[in-house]
Amino acid sequence: MFKLSRVLHLTTTSRHRLLEVFSSRNVEVGDSLRDRRDFTYSAGISTATNNYAAKGYASDRIFAPYTVYKGKAAFSLSPCLPTFTKLDSGTVVVDRRGSMMITFMHSIGERKYDWEKRQRFALSATEIGSLITMGSQDSSEFFHDPSMLSSNAGQVRKSLSIKPNANSNGYFVSLTVVNNLLNTKDYFSVPVTTAEFAVMKTACSFALPHIMGWDQITNQQSRGTVGLQQKGGSQVLDLEWEK
Amino acid sequence: MFKLSRVLHLTTTSRHRLLEVFSSRNVEVGDSLRDRRDFTYSAGISTATNNYAAKGYASDRIFAPYTVYKGKAAFSLSPCLPTFTKLDSGTVVVDRRGSMMITFMHSIGERKYDWEKRQRFALSATEIGSLITMGSQDSSEFFHDPSMLSSNAGQVRKSLSIKPNANSNGYFVSLTVVNNLLNTKDYFSVPVTTAEFAVMKTACSFALPHIMGWDQITNQQSRGTVGLQQKGGSQVLDLEWEK
Amino acid sequence: MFKLSRVLHLTTTSRHRLLEVFSSRNVEVGDSLRDRRDFTYSAGISTATNNYAAKGYASDRIFAPYTVYKGKAAFSLSPCLPTFTKLDSGTVVVDRRGSMMITFMHSIGERKYDWEKRQRFALSATEIGSLITMGSQDSSEFFHDPSMLSSNAGQVRKSLSIKPNANSNGYFVSLTVVNNLLNTKDYFSVPVTTAEFAVMKTACSFALPHIMGWDQITNQQSRGTVGLQQKGGSQVLDLEWEK
Amino acid sequence: MFKLSRVLHLTTTSRHRLLEVFSSRNVEVGDSLRDRRDFTYSAGISTATNNYAAKGYASDRIFAPYTVYKGKAAFSLSPCLPTFTKLDSGTVVVDRRGSMMITFMHSIGERKYDWEKRQRFALSATEIGSLITMGSQDSSEFFHDPSMLSSNAGQVRKSLSIKPNANSNGYFVSLTVVNNLLNTKDYFSVPVTTAEFAVMKTACSFALPHIMGWDQITNQQSRGTVGLQQKGGSQVLDLEWEK
Repeated sequence: MFKLSRVLHLTTTSRHRLLEVFSSRNVEVGDSLRDRRDFTYSAGISTATNNYAAKGYASDRIFAPYTVYKGKAAFSLSPCLPTFTKLDSGTVVVDRRGSMMITFMHSIGERKYDWEKRQRFALSATEIGSLITMGSQDSSEFFHDPSMLSSNAGQVRKSLSIKPNANSNGYFVSLTVVNNLLNTKDYFSVPVTTAEFAVMKTACSFALPHIMGWDQITNQQSRGTVGLQQKGGSQVLDLEWEK
Repeated sequence: MFKLSRVLHLTTTSRHRLLEVFSSRNVEVGDSLRDRRDFTYSAGISTATNNYAAKGYASDRIFAPYTVYKGKAAFSLSPCLPTFTKLDSGTVVVDRRGSMMITFMHSIGERKYDWEKRQRFALSATEIGSLITMGSQDSSEFFHDPSMLSSNAGQVRKSLSIKPNANSNGYFVSLTVVNNLLNTKDYFSVPVTTAEFAVMKTACSFALPHIMGWDQITNQQSRGTVGLQQKGGSQVLDLEWEK
Repeated sequence: MFKLSRVLHLTTTSRHRLLEVFSSRNVEVGDSLRDRRDFTYSAGISTATNNYAAKGYASDRIFAPYTVYKGKAAFSLSPCLPTFTKLDSGTVVVDRRGSMMITFMHSIGERKYDWEKRQRFALSATEIGSLITMGSQDSSEFFHDPSMLSSNAGQVRKSLSIKPNANSNGYFVSLTVVNNLLNTKDYFSVPVTTAEFAVMKTACSFALPHIMGWDQITNQQSRGTVGLQQKGGSQVLDLEWEK
Repeated sequence: MFKLSRVLHLTTTSRHRLLEVFSSRNVEVGDSLRDRRDFTYSAGISTATNNYAAKGYASDRIFAPYTVYKGKAAFSLSPCLPTFTKLDSGTVVVDRRGSMMITFMHSIGERKYDWEKRQRFALSATEIGSLITMGSQDSSEFFHDPSMLSSNAGQVRKSLSIKPNANSNGYFVSLTVVNNLLNTKDYFSVPVTTAEFAVMKTACSFALPHIMGWDQITNQQSRGTVGLQQKGGSQVLDLEWEK
């Protein structure tokens, strides 16, 4: 774990260091990230690593989220890769789909964000498709119901909305979570600049084929498992016409 | 192989799991994929793996198609990489070209699609070029004749059309297969949203260099087979002017 | 080397195979590549491999050009990676810059192109930048002089022009080579469709970072040579402010 | 190190070679880079390698900057990857953020640029987002203060501006460095063509996910550390709803 003292020291010496301080409840963001005049410098890490270990993730994970910190709330964007299962036949198929995870946190003071009460929204491939084609005047809204097919269907609802601001030079990215079981409602709204949204679009476009698992298909050849045939050893296969 | 019982269980517990059920004839799509309010969540696996093994493919293949499920039909998109042949000289050349395979299936009931009667269309690199430059008002149509150079030329014709819908907020992707030898005609039409088409475009743009085999060229250096020369050991080679 | 008999057989059985036939002088293109109704299927290999071996290239090279075959001429596009030199200090620098090589051939009969009299033009990174930003009404023209700094400067001139056709639904890609030393003038002009140009743009955009050598920079980390530091072992380095 | 005599020889024989000559103070650019009619050929290496070794970098680094040489000044663009730290838990987090480094040099004579008095500006991910979305009429300006959080805050200021030229067919890229401590002011301005800016945009878009460290996330699977699960061995994990 990061040592608090070390990190705080860094905030005064280097603009390029990551400045979040981790505790079990809050994320503190170093001054340099918030005080910059152009206010575009956004920061990184968004998870208490012990949490993940407890859930059975591989310990060797890499965290490099893109985070937009603003006055009342912050959100970070991080790709979640699909998982694959190898069938008895040797074929590998997608087990759990990939997504683009957006994690929202409320501001709870000067450069502090409440990691404990964060809320998440996992954009599917098609929802990412919506985001990356948005023009400066366009809006998007996505609805998720975690208990969709159970007896609790409709009791908890999440909606993520992306709406242009009045000047069309940026967006509001907002998350609403209504939980009728707990009788709670949570709301986050983060203004993003055109530049920040451009990073989101470029990063989502980069990540999309990975989230779809297509990089695994195109990487097969590099790993030498398919593709290279010895001269003369190949049959005529016309994929389109065969079944 | 996926166990049916396991998969059905999953449909009620996880929105992010793949929910197709494989049998020899049909693809059943779990409820969560169809019942979602925004209706944009599309699913994954589109093949009975035993089929492939029978055709002599390498067993170690990865399946991660992008599938658009709609009321009357579904189609999935999956890149097919080129194969290469090593000549006696050591040079590696493309043997069979890559393509973007589109596989259509008819709906045959609630969340069931007929895998057995699927039809395929393999987009070439240039046809992919057409698709990825389509504006919201543009149409494309491609014609393939599998027996083009044989005595059966013109007897079987496939055409794939992509046409904007009335509101210009999406397309109809349709496949017609006319087989004069069997006296059959098959027709599929799947409406796609702007978001789904954005995924198709981004995924096709990502896949295109791989389908062309250019990733193999650019990867040569990483594998250390070309490019790094010892200092002083290189001759002056001006590629443009030499033959 | 490809066997002629084998390749000719393939032309009648598989639309997806490469159909060029290599001889020391000509490239013959199989029927299926030229006779297709949509005329968009373009083919692959463009080199007699023995030539290359003679020039001292690594024998283990991969050829996967994108070729546009038209009635009077054809051209193919293939990325040429930069070469690198390792200095005594261990630093690796670009030795010969990368480029996008365009190779033109005249048609010399039904589906035959004259490989022996080909002419080449190597687009630099910035010239590629020109190409990939061209709108449907834009023109580009590039001039190269192989003997620019020698006493023969101006004696041999190459110019590549890309001009929109009358309907703005495609371009003419033309190469002129004037050699005052040999008193020869060579001219090639190939019409390209919007779809073919889209492939060229997408492929060039993909290749550009590789041609610049930037993939080697970004791949350093994957190879573990830079980037991962042991916790606490790093100094505060503010790259921008240090010299 | 490059031998001067060798490099100078190359300038007269090969247009594709790198032509910079390194000394401890200046960068000399070979004639062919400046004298070309279309003036678009820009060159490569921009660092005296010994400098870097002295600062404790890994010796095995690769240099392949994109440099725009113009009459009064030059600048080069080169991605700086983030560094990572492995925590005790095994999790890897970003330690120092990546950036796109722009290095400016004054011209100090015919094809000579003053490497010793260079000035640098490190674009953050969000600033890169600004750059890659600029239309032909758009301007951007970024401000950095190296001593932002220290007692010297405001004493040294750097600003980078990108402004369209009068004809909107290119930009001026300018850097101002005001140092009140040393009572100095430094100013560089380099005109860039549309083609050169297209290379910058494409290269920055390519580099952005790497600068963000997302390539490390998406590469995890290829390295086999996460993602592939044995059949049946996975639990139901719904990432969005768990904390």
